[in-house]
Amino acid sequence: MSREKYVLVGQSGGPTAAINSSLAGVIAAGILEGARVEGMRYGIQGFLDGNSVRLDEAFVSRVDLELLRNTPASWLGSCRFKLPDPSQDDAVYQRLFERFDEVGATAVLYIGGNDSMDTIAKLGAYGSAHGSDIRFIGVPKTIDNDLVGTDHTPGYGSAARFVATAMNEIAYDADVYNLKSVTFVEIMGRDAGWLAASSALSFVEPDVVLLPEVPLDEEALLERISTTLGEKNTVMVGVSEGVRAADGSLICERATSGAGVDEFGHLAMLSGASRYLAALTKQRLGCKARAVELSTLQRCASYVASRTDLNEAYDVGHAAVEAAFAGETTKMCAIERVSDKPYESRTKLVDVLSVANQVRNVPREWIAADGMGVTPELIAYMKPLVGELPAQLATLD
Amino acid sequence: MSREKYVLVGQSGGPTAAINSSLAGVIAAGILEGARVEGMRYGIQGFLDGNSVRLDEAFVSRVDLELLRNTPASWLGSCRFKLPDPSQDDAVYQRLFERFDEVGATAVLYIGGNDSMDTIAKLGAYGSAHGSDIRFIGVPKTIDNDLVGTDHTPGYGSAARFVATAMNEIAYDADVYNLKSVTFVEIMGRDAGWLAASSALSFVEPDVVLLPEVPLDEEALLERISTTLGEKNTVMVGVSEGVRAADGSLICERATSGAGVDEFGHLAMLSGASRYLAALTKQRLGCKARAVELSTLQRCASYVASRTDLNEAYDVGHAAVEAAFAGETTKMCAIERVSDKPYESRTKLVDVLSVANQVRNVPREWIAADGMGVTPELIAYMKPLVGELPAQLATLD
Repeated sequence: MSREKYVLVGQSGGPTAAINSSLAGVIAAGILEGARVEGMRYGIQGFLDGNSVRLDEAFVSRVDLELLRNTPASWLGSCRFKLPDPSQDDAVYQRLFERFDEVGATAVLYIGGNDSMDTIAKLGAYGSAHGSDIRFIGVPKTIDNDLVGTDHTPGYGSAARFVATAMNEIAYDADVYNLKSVTFVEIMGRDAGWLAASSALSFVEPDVVLLPEVPLDEEALLERISTTLGEKNTVMVGVSEGVRAADGSLICERATSGAGVDEFGHLAMLSGASRYLAALTKQRLGCKARAVELSTLQRCASYVASRTDLNEAYDVGHAAVEAAFAGETTKMCAIERVSDKPYESRTKLVDVLSVANQVRNVPREWIAADGMGVTPELIAYMKPLVGELPAQLATLD
Repeated sequence: MSREKYVLVGQSGGPTAAINSSLAGVIAAGILEGARVEGMRYGIQGFLDGNSVRLDEAFVSRVDLELLRNTPASWLGSCRFKLPDPSQDDAVYQRLFERFDEVGATAVLYIGGNDSMDTIAKLGAYGSAHGSDIRFIGVPKTIDNDLVGTDHTPGYGSAARFVATAMNEIAYDADVYNLKSVTFVEIMGRDAGWLAASSALSFVEPDVVLLPEVPLDEEALLERISTTLGEKNTVMVGVSEGVRAADGSLICERATSGAGVDEFGHLAMLSGASRYLAALTKQRLGCKARAVELSTLQRCASYVASRTDLNEAYDVGHAAVEAAFAGETTKMCAIERVSDKPYESRTKLVDVLSVANQVRNVPREWIAADGMGVTPELIAYMKPLVGELPAQLATLD
């Protein structure tokens, strides 16, 4: 007699506006498959501590899956937990597989970014090597959009929509006084510039966009800003938190080189590429310059979520469950772009071993030759993921 | 023969999400009155420099007033310009009234906060004293909601909606890891706590709300946070940038008392009540504590604008033009609350001299006895101005 179908699902890594939509897809597919669906509370780590929550029919009868789809952050809770190399230390693997067998899991799904795909890859490999028939499937999510093997990642479209919207609001705000000013808007993405690039989708286009993929030439930047200020009042710069100098050092760390110690003796939180660049601009060009950090809102603003993103996040969760019960394991459920106009995508399975621990950067040819902007190809890539933005009246000249 | 009707309108002070809706109301009413409508570019100051833009039918045929209603910040541009006491210095009044007569203005409308009402009061008084028949009407707007003579100010509802929404997103984000943490969300309002109070409308209610109206007792705050951390993981605090200690000093200025000087020798931008309180909490309670500044987005986020706010902003602009052509002058067009359930309001005229240069604070009886929260009366006051917020799934216990 075959075992009862049992989907064990966890969320891991940083929150996004779309990760709960993937969870909703997993639950819906699990119910369709007649499976029991159990959620790990606080990821693998919470599960090891015996912390889980029932998600299948009994739960769904009480709440609306649609509400879950539109709820930001990781509803199940999250953790940051990297599995060791099993050849070095397999104690945690033994405990995990004991717990999997204890609850009767037949499919284990993990929704997350790079580390989560590493977890699925290691669990899948360990399971195969030890004769387990549990299926392991990764469901991607990250606002950084830096996973390989997929056209883009769930979570990116919504975060990019927030960034483009916020950039636009700030550009209107910056332009109200009749004076020269430069505004640096700092955007998440320590290694890859996908999210910072989305600032270029603002209705009021930024004048400069700086990504981590191209070393920053401060003198060229100052010259560009100076020239632009000769033509208009307000210069807007979208800047990735991960922008680096030619020697590879992070610009955001320069700001801590001063005597920035707070009243408790801690290193002051002076860090920030935008603060550094605003101070530099003020000093060198003598004009008003300010830094705006989009902060945590950019990863969790569900009120400006992209509908396409929420739908695709749901689809990859749904397809991951189907794949597991079709016998697949050690795979990631990815997104394939079928066409741009009209935009169409579908899910596909990729080997999770080929995904884990790699970073997908913005290709150099999608960044302007001078490193201070994005190309039409990158705009065309991002646009359908973000969706239409509300129309606004152009600023007066 | 009577002079041609001519509405001259300006925007002043900081931008909001609703100030352009008032401008749209002015333009629409001006057209209905058969008036010429001219906008001051960059407020009174720009107008003095000969900078204005035609807004009546010719303009409206080219753009959609509806677009203007939904465009954030001051579309005409703004200034910060306080008129001198005319008994000390009337040169600027002479120049202004010359310019008014030059263009043929019959009604001058100024959309703004306290300083703008002061401008209207002074111009109205000067005009009366010098036999001018130009009508001067003030159209209120400020996210601070601190004008007297009106139930609330246009711009407040939208900013409050942003604050409540952002507080909620950040609360979900803060709760994903299985650890104790305290998040301080810093909200604008140097003197009045209306906007900070709106953080209490978040679906996930904040545990503490701190307003400038009640001196902060740091020890009581730490004790409250400590007790709450004994009951749950995540403590959320909404804090006004204007919170003060018992001696009247601003909490946000404490953070600059350290050796915070940036690499250019400027005083580091360490200021911020939330940063100070996060550092204090970390030091004293030993738990994770972070500060989030909502920054400029809270005054210009038109994508979460309150529909009620945009409508009322439009209405006061519209009614101000009607009042001017009905012969009123030296008035502010205010909002009167007619009923709470269902919410209903209407415009009314108040003497602008009784409004200018006063600050309306949150009444002490609308703040919790311990000074760390808001009462149901204040919630009931704010709720209809902000509108329904999207439903989300409650966080897991």
